[in-house]
Amino acid sequence: MIIILDVDASTEELERDLHDKGYVVHTLKGDTHVLLYVMGDTTELESRALNAHDGVVDVIRTKEPYRYVNRPLPKERPLRIGKRRFSEMTPFIIAGPCAVESAEQIAKIAATVAKAGAHALRGGAFKPRTSPHSFQGLEREGLIHLRKAADEAGLYAVSEITDKEDLSFFEEHVDIIQVGARNMQNYDLLKALGKAKKPVLLKRGFANTVEEWLLSAEYLLMHGNPDVILCERGIRTFDSATRHTLDLNGMLYAKQITELPVIVDPSHAAGDYRLVEGLSKASIAAGADGLMIEVHNNPFQAFSDGAQSLKPKRFEKLMRAITAYTE
Amino acid sequence: MIIILDVDASTEELERDLHDKGYVVHTLKGDTHVLLYVMGDTTELESRALNAHDGVVDVIRTKEPYRYVNRPLPKERPLRIGKRRFSEMTPFIIAGPCAVESAEQIAKIAATVAKAGAHALRGGAFKPRTSPHSFQGLEREGLIHLRKAADEAGLYAVSEITDKEDLSFFEEHVDIIQVGARNMQNYDLLKALGKAKKPVLLKRGFANTVEEWLLSAEYLLMHGNPDVILCERGIRTFDSATRHTLDLNGMLYAKQITELPVIVDPSHAAGDYRLVEGLSKASIAAGADGLMIEVHNNPFQAFSDGAQSLKPKRFEKLMRAITAYTE
Amino acid sequence: MIIILDVDASTEELERDLHDKGYVVHTLKGDTHVLLYVMGDTTELESRALNAHDGVVDVIRTKEPYRYVNRPLPKERPLRIGKRRFSEMTPFIIAGPCAVESAEQIAKIAATVAKAGAHALRGGAFKPRTSPHSFQGLEREGLIHLRKAADEAGLYAVSEITDKEDLSFFEEHVDIIQVGARNMQNYDLLKALGKAKKPVLLKRGFANTVEEWLLSAEYLLMHGNPDVILCERGIRTFDSATRHTLDLNGMLYAKQITELPVIVDPSHAAGDYRLVEGLSKASIAAGADGLMIEVHNNPFQAFSDGAQSLKPKRFEKLMRAITAYTE
Amino acid sequence: MIIILDVDASTEELERDLHDKGYVVHTLKGDTHVLLYVMGDTTELESRALNAHDGVVDVIRTKEPYRYVNRPLPKERPLRIGKRRFSEMTPFIIAGPCAVESAEQIAKIAATVAKAGAHALRGGAFKPRTSPHSFQGLEREGLIHLRKAADEAGLYAVSEITDKEDLSFFEEHVDIIQVGARNMQNYDLLKALGKAKKPVLLKRGFANTVEEWLLSAEYLLMHGNPDVILCERGIRTFDSATRHTLDLNGMLYAKQITELPVIVDPSHAAGDYRLVEGLSKASIAAGADGLMIEVHNNPFQAFSDGAQSLKPKRFEKLMRAITAYTE
Repeated sequence: MIIILDVDASTEELERDLHDKGYVVHTLKGDTHVLLYVMGDTTELESRALNAHDGVVDVIRTKEPYRYVNRPLPKERPLRIGKRRFSEMTPFIIAGPCAVESAEQIAKIAATVAKAGAHALRGGAFKPRTSPHSFQGLEREGLIHLRKAADEAGLYAVSEITDKEDLSFFEEHVDIIQVGARNMQNYDLLKALGKAKKPVLLKRGFANTVEEWLLSAEYLLMHGNPDVILCERGIRTFDSATRHTLDLNGMLYAKQITELPVIVDPSHAAGDYRLVEGLSKASIAAGADGLMIEVHNNPFQAFSDGAQSLKPKRFEKLMRAITAYTE
Repeated sequence: MIIILDVDASTEELERDLHDKGYVVHTLKGDTHVLLYVMGDTTELESRALNAHDGVVDVIRTKEPYRYVNRPLPKERPLRIGKRRFSEMTPFIIAGPCAVESAEQIAKIAATVAKAGAHALRGGAFKPRTSPHSFQGLEREGLIHLRKAADEAGLYAVSEITDKEDLSFFEEHVDIIQVGARNMQNYDLLKALGKAKKPVLLKRGFANTVEEWLLSAEYLLMHGNPDVILCERGIRTFDSATRHTLDLNGMLYAKQITELPVIVDPSHAAGDYRLVEGLSKASIAAGADGLMIEVHNNPFQAFSDGAQSLKPKRFEKLMRAITAYTE
Repeated sequence: MIIILDVDASTEELERDLHDKGYVVHTLKGDTHVLLYVMGDTTELESRALNAHDGVVDVIRTKEPYRYVNRPLPKERPLRIGKRRFSEMTPFIIAGPCAVESAEQIAKIAATVAKAGAHALRGGAFKPRTSPHSFQGLEREGLIHLRKAADEAGLYAVSEITDKEDLSFFEEHVDIIQVGARNMQNYDLLKALGKAKKPVLLKRGFANTVEEWLLSAEYLLMHGNPDVILCERGIRTFDSATRHTLDLNGMLYAKQITELPVIVDPSHAAGDYRLVEGLSKASIAAGADGLMIEVHNNPFQAFSDGAQSLKPKRFEKLMRAITAYTE
Repeated sequence: MIIILDVDASTEELERDLHDKGYVVHTLKGDTHVLLYVMGDTTELESRALNAHDGVVDVIRTKEPYRYVNRPLPKERPLRIGKRRFSEMTPFIIAGPCAVESAEQIAKIAATVAKAGAHALRGGAFKPRTSPHSFQGLEREGLIHLRKAADEAGLYAVSEITDKEDLSFFEEHVDIIQVGARNMQNYDLLKALGKAKKPVLLKRGFANTVEEWLLSAEYLLMHGNPDVILCERGIRTFDSATRHTLDLNGMLYAKQITELPVIVDPSHAAGDYRLVEGLSKASIAAGADGLMIEVHNNPFQAFSDGAQSLKPKRFEKLMRAITAYTE
């Protein structure tokens, strides 16, 4: 860590304080500023508090704030979904409706997406909705339908958890537990999922930086769960012409820091099914490890997010395009 | 609700479907578009799903999406903090450290802010921190220190909850339960707080629209808690010169829709104590019902957010300025 | 256009006023609102002024605000760069340094990018720099070097204009005149370029909506120049980890509205050469009509934007990847 | 300037290069990084180009990028509007319509705002409009009407320039020449206004950082015009409920760096007249040196921006409130 002070600031108190905390400090005096170079692991030093010290102009972290997400992945213990290695299935395709609406609906869509080549079935059962007046999901019953539909179609099951009370029920019924964008900074939930026996799919919050996203993954890893898949799903910007803006810059930047797999959800990023195909191809071309796509057999009747769901025919076409691409 | 379709789109299926759901629909055919005006309470109709219908160009909600937050406040049951009416204490001033660090620290700051005229003492015990390596709070022990310090100084106590498991402990130890910006869309927590016996201070998420903020308040009201105080605390924008951007437009816009009190947290909005005085005055001048200000006797030693905390002297000066202002 | 009023608002004055302006108005009275449907070309009606009328709740444009950019392109008069049809050269690749620094530098880079397969050479001569203390470009001398280097390498020349006074000099020396992001809403410049004898490359402003971008193109078309190429180059968002965020959503959305070609500048969108390859592939996969890429033989010595420039070797590799892609 | 490199990076080439450019460089080797402290005026060193050097992790400017805007104002040559000192008139109030529509309109509004206590009359004659189909202003005729109306009412005249060709006409007809938000980075215009004989009111671009805004002021000062008034007018954020978001953080932050006066335009920041009063009071309370407010006698008939204009009665009320405030 580098602390930059005005050239005439007193550094004594600050240096003493840092020594007391066990740090070795080197000092360099320039023409207009003094630099303190703080050696060692400064992860726990609060740069904002240091900023409050008289004469401090800036505090620069020279090291990344991570201890876990930036480590090489353990070769001897690769990420598995069910019994298969994740790396053998890339690009890993998760598809299905926004919400599980009935046993019939989810079974029908499961059969469709399996035939088209998807690896996993998505379907929300606990829906965090902006309005309390919107459909809130079938809850545990929905997870039971999802599991059954996935099994019959030979797919893995993915669903979003919102409350740690439901964790053991999720562990029994799904293969990947999803943390939604709105809960990316729900740290009590993340700590609980650090103890989960299943992989976690961590969506990026729609207004969170890549660093905040990776630090949320850090909570999962630090609390014991090494099986984390990151998912970029669009960020909030000034232009509301499309629902969100897919941030492939962020996806690529995350991949420079971490070896954890990063997939993309083009459906939420677009909010409009007509953009999903283009964004899906772009994501795979840029190097994403997979996709999470909303598919619904009757988007107009969908209980939620109908406008961004692909009909089965379009999904099949997209799958063919992507396959051609990655062969 | 108004549904706008292309002039040559077929509206039959859509009209029948809406009739089946119990809505009365009026139709107007123009030169380039057809309008369907849907009468009645359309709060539960998903505009995104309607958008998926062939020929639909746009769906306009003519009514606000609220049923509770836009109602007049009940005169016969005014908001009380402890035994006093909130309206008798405006501008309501909450002050104190970001985090409770020890019994001594919180007691000392409590005495200081009470003397300067604050009504309530803030102090975080459960801290939702971006990094798992940052100080996470003293937890229940911190709440006990906070309660004791508040009582001795004759102040109300305010602290942030992050997990509904702690609710009864919060109800016993604080006068106002705070929901932080990161948990504004943690709907399971909001539903639980709808049953709480204490008023809730609901902070706006740093990248949430005013509508999303009011809909989170709607969760609290709908689930049974009428005692909600809203708190604007700055939003995330493209300019990182200051930590966040205080959104007084949003504060004023919220006040056009709801009668719930709206206070402002200039400390988090600024991220720099030098801006806090100006933003505090601005907030009160614009019509805010109160302020939530970070005060720390030794910002440099603060475990978190030191740079934005006022020292006691500056806080006293600010309180005098605000009092002069509102007399 | 639809004007939505409160159900008890008086519409008489408004209707009379619209009739006086020559519009036919249909009225529909619902349960909570009255709608006025205004027939005909309402492009010149100011929705913000209508909003000021008592009782008006909202004003909805049912038609796009465009008259030119949303028209089919004239088949009989296709866009040509020099003597070749643009459509025969897609994906159209523009490459070169941020700024022309000397005759030698630009000649050397021109030879390199031509060999790798680029169609056109970029090089700024009039540089709009954020700071007046930064290098401002070689001006007219730079354009002469650019033209010579392009000719020797068999490339088209592209450069940015900032002042309409220089228009005839640009017409003589370049094949495509570029309008930079900062001048996207410099309407006096756009009006002058509407009379230009060369195609215009219109970059999207880094904080402009797609609608604003297309309306700037509308200025060019309306003032007489049908030869417009749009260029998405990244937008400003809350995350500053990468310089800008490439907005492929916006690129795809623009393509739904207009048939004008849309290319992508991944270099400015990334601000870091390590992201350029991924974003380039993504753009082409999503359907962009071309790329504009910064290439410099010595990025460290570059007078501007060195960090985002590719070295020749990386550019060659990227060209091979893209070619493989589009075959 | 501080250049941070990986601890094992070679610094030789970089150091030699910096020495060749005349800089003295000090080196400090830490545990994980090497720091180069570059002494002297590094304003012209491109940090982005340095970043392209192998092993460079970050480049930190320890000094502000300004040479002019951060200087103390010359006491012996204070800013004057006409013959009066600006400092004797604060808060300096500019009021009037968005656009000059006719001689009668501007004369009527001038009389109204003068009576209420305004110092200057605004009125656009050259209007930079997003759409080419919107009213573009009365141009030179409009300026003549504005001058006449201002003179009769005893007010100063303020209007926006968009093309440097009109500069001498503006110098003759207005007392303050305004640069609009869209032209804040039109550096050719700024260079020309650096030679202007009248003070310049520089609006902040709606998506420009405070640093970019001050660097645009730097262009004016560096090219010879010391008489610059800055104007914050709202920034573009993710929430479109209000037109823009007034950035008082930015206003206060700018005032920490520069002694140039900073005023606020709450009308464009709000986009809705109902928010203007609250934002005006907030701005003055926060310490703004003045206001620029849109007033129109018939907002509904206004050619532009009617929804955000105050009617004369509301403006008078606001002026009384502000006067009470600053006495």
